[in-house]
Amino acid sequence: MSLIVQKYGGTSVGNTERINSVAKRILETQRAGHQVVAVVSAMAGVTNRLIEMANEVSPDNEPTDREMDVLLATGEQTTIALTSMAINAMGGKAISLTGAQAGIVTDGDHTKARISNITPDEVHRLLDENHIVILAGFQGRSPDGRITTLGRGGSDLTAIAMAAAIDADLCQILTDVDGVYTCDPRVVPKARKIDEISYDEMLEMASSGSKVMQSRSVEFAKKFGVKFEVRSSLNENPGTIVTEEHPNMESVVVRGVSIEREQAKVTIENVSDEPGVAAKIFHAISDSGVVIDMIVQNVSKTNQTDISFTLHRSDLKKAKQTIDPILKDLGNESSIETTDGIGKLSVVGIGMRSHSGVAAQMFAALANNGINIQMISTSEIKTAVIIKEEDLEQSANIVHSAFNL
Amino acid sequence: MSLIVQKYGGTSVGNTERINSVAKRILETQRAGHQVVAVVSAMAGVTNRLIEMANEVSPDNEPTDREMDVLLATGEQTTIALTSMAINAMGGKAISLTGAQAGIVTDGDHTKARISNITPDEVHRLLDENHIVILAGFQGRSPDGRITTLGRGGSDLTAIAMAAAIDADLCQILTDVDGVYTCDPRVVPKARKIDEISYDEMLEMASSGSKVMQSRSVEFAKKFGVKFEVRSSLNENPGTIVTEEHPNMESVVVRGVSIEREQAKVTIENVSDEPGVAAKIFHAISDSGVVIDMIVQNVSKTNQTDISFTLHRSDLKKAKQTIDPILKDLGNESSIETTDGIGKLSVVGIGMRSHSGVAAQMFAALANNGINIQMISTSEIKTAVIIKEEDLEQSANIVHSAFNL
Repeated sequence: MSLIVQKYGGTSVGNTERINSVAKRILETQRAGHQVVAVVSAMAGVTNRLIEMANEVSPDNEPTDREMDVLLATGEQTTIALTSMAINAMGGKAISLTGAQAGIVTDGDHTKARISNITPDEVHRLLDENHIVILAGFQGRSPDGRITTLGRGGSDLTAIAMAAAIDADLCQILTDVDGVYTCDPRVVPKARKIDEISYDEMLEMASSGSKVMQSRSVEFAKKFGVKFEVRSSLNENPGTIVTEEHPNMESVVVRGVSIEREQAKVTIENVSDEPGVAAKIFHAISDSGVVIDMIVQNVSKTNQTDISFTLHRSDLKKAKQTIDPILKDLGNESSIETTDGIGKLSVVGIGMRSHSGVAAQMFAALANNGINIQMISTSEIKTAVIIKEEDLEQSANIVHSAFNL
Repeated sequence: MSLIVQKYGGTSVGNTERINSVAKRILETQRAGHQVVAVVSAMAGVTNRLIEMANEVSPDNEPTDREMDVLLATGEQTTIALTSMAINAMGGKAISLTGAQAGIVTDGDHTKARISNITPDEVHRLLDENHIVILAGFQGRSPDGRITTLGRGGSDLTAIAMAAAIDADLCQILTDVDGVYTCDPRVVPKARKIDEISYDEMLEMASSGSKVMQSRSVEFAKKFGVKFEVRSSLNENPGTIVTEEHPNMESVVVRGVSIEREQAKVTIENVSDEPGVAAKIFHAISDSGVVIDMIVQNVSKTNQTDISFTLHRSDLKKAKQTIDPILKDLGNESSIETTDGIGKLSVVGIGMRSHSGVAAQMFAALANNGINIQMISTSEIKTAVIIKEEDLEQSANIVHSAFNL
C-alpha cells in the first residue's frame, strides 16, 4: 500500500459530470490498495465569476486583498464538498478539508501567501480511518486564523507541499495534457512525451514558456525532494516523472525545446559604462511592476555601452514610460529603442553541462535555414535565442530535429 | 454610542447592486455613531443552486450531511466577502468573519446544528478597532472543527445569538416586509403594522402561519432576553419591536390574526379509550416524519373515543399510510377518515389572559356570517379554529374587524 497525493485542476472538475469522473478515478485509486489525498481546484470559470462580482462591488478600487481571499476560497470549498459527496454516493468514504482544516499555515500576504508550515495531523487521522481526504487547493490560513490564498499555481503547490508533509510515495498532478513534451505538439508535430525530467530542466522549460506548471511549485518540489508525475486526468497513460537528476539523464543532451511568443525588446544605447547604471535601470523597471526576462549587456570598448532586455509585449509601453524620464541620468547621449514582434526559442537539458557544442549546433541549424538571431542568453542547462516571432514555429521544428528529439 | 446587530436576508443581498445598498446602509449606521455587526445570508438563489449540484453528484442518495454543510457554508462566505469589499470601497473599514472565525460553536448535528456557545473575542477585538464586522449567518463549527450549518432560519438565529453574546443594545432583522402585521395585508387590506409584540405572541403568530421568522430564533431571543426589531431593508420606516411582555401590552386583547392554508385533517374514530392508544398513534406519525399541528380528543362517555389531528395537505397520504397498518391495534372498530380543503384561523394576544370572552366573540363573529367551525384548539394566548379553506380569507377579515384591529 502506498500513499498517493493527486491533484485535479479546474478543467478536470469543471462541472458535476466531470466531478463524478474525478470521484470515480480517486475511488479506483484507493480500491487499488492505496491511501489517497486528492487536492482539487475551483471549478473552471468559478474564480473568474467571483472576481467579476468583487469588481462590481468595488468599481473604483482594487477589492480588499483580505476579503478577496475569503471570496476566492469558496471556489475550492465548493469543489471539495461536491467531490466528497460524489465519492460517498459511489460507496466510498471521503471527507473534505479546507486548507485551514488540513493544517496548512501560510504567511499573511493575502492573494499570494507562502506556505510556512503544515501540521497534517488531521490528514493522517482521516487516512488511518480509511478515509479518502479531499483537500482544497490554493488556500491556507494565516497564523492568526485569517483565510489566505496562494496565488497562481496554488493548487499544484498545495499538492506538492502536502505530499512533502505527509511523506507521500507519489504525487500526481492530473491535468488536461499527457505530460511534459519535448516541444508544444501544436507547434512541432513530431514532439513526444518526456518520460522523466529533472527539476532543473522542468524549471527551465517552465520559464521558457512551457506552462504545464508554475515554476514556484517545481522549486518547492525540488527543495523538498518531492518526486511527482504530470499526467492526464482524461486517460490512463503514464505521464512525465519530475525528479532529482541522476547520471542517466545526462545521456540526453537536450531534453526539450520551448518557445515563448509575444515578446518585445528594449535597448538602451550609449549608457555610461560605470557602476550603478544598470541598477538604476532595473530598479526603476522593478518598481513599475514590469516583469522582464532576458538581460544582455555586451562588453564595451569605450566608456559607453548598450543594455538590452526582453519582456512581454503588453508591458512594452509601460517600460518605455518608466525609462524615458531617467534616460538623461544614464548617459549624455543615451537613447531608447523598442522592438516587438519577437519571440524566444530555448533548448533545455542537463546534458549540456557535460556536452559542449550545444549552442553551436543550435545556432548552425538556425543559420542554415536563414534564421537571424537577435539576442542570445545561456544558463548552465539552457540556451535561449531571440528571433523574429514569425520564424518561431519553423525554428522550433528545425531545432527539434537538429537534436533528434 | 450603541452596539447594533443587523441581519440582512438573502433577498436583500440578492445581487451585487443590492449588496452595495446594504453596504451603504451598514456604513450609515456606523457613521451615525454606532458599533455594527452585520449578519448576512447567502445571496438569494445561491443555496438552491448549490443543492442542485449536490443532487447531481449524489443522484441516488441524500448527499452526505457533513459535506452538505461544507458546500452550503460557501454561500454566506461569498456574501460576507462581497459586503466587506463594498463597504471598504465606500471608504469604510469592514472585516468579514465566518461563523467559525466569529467563535460560534455548535453541536455536530450537520445541516441542523444547534448553537452551544459563542466566544466573541474576535468580534470584540475588531469592534474595538472601529471595524464593522460582517458575519456569515447560518453557520458555525463543531467542537472538533467541522463546518456546520444551523438549518432553516439560521441567519436570524446567528444575529440573535450574537446579539446576546456581545450584549448588543439592539438587534435588527432587516427583511422585505415592514414588520409584523395584525394580519397578512394581502388577505386583510385593513391590516396594520404592529409597533410592539411580546415573544410569546410572536411565537404564536409564527406557529399560526405568519412566517416572518422561524419560531426557533424567537424562542432563542426569549430565552436570552434579546429585544429585536423586524423592519424593512428597503426603507427607513420603524418596524415591529419584539420584546418581553409588559403590563401595557395587555390593554390590547388581540394582537393579530393569522391564517394557515392547505391544511388537512385526519380523524381516527372508535379507538379504545385506554392509556397508550394516543401514544401509539403519534409515535407512528412521528417516526414517519410527518409534522402535525393541532390534536383534538374529546371526552368520551363510552369506552371508545375519536382522535383528530391536522397537518399540511402534502403529508396527508403519508399519514394515512402510516395509520392504516396499525388501525386494528387501536380498537376493534377503529376507522380512519381524512379531509383536506381546510385551513386554520388563529387570533393571538396576551390580553386574552385577563380578558374573558375572546373565544366567544370570535365564534359569534364567524357564526353571524355563516362560517362553520370544524375544530377548535386554544392555548393561553391563542384561539384557533379549523374552517373550510374557501372561507379562510373572508373569515380573517371578519375576525380582524370584530376585534377592531
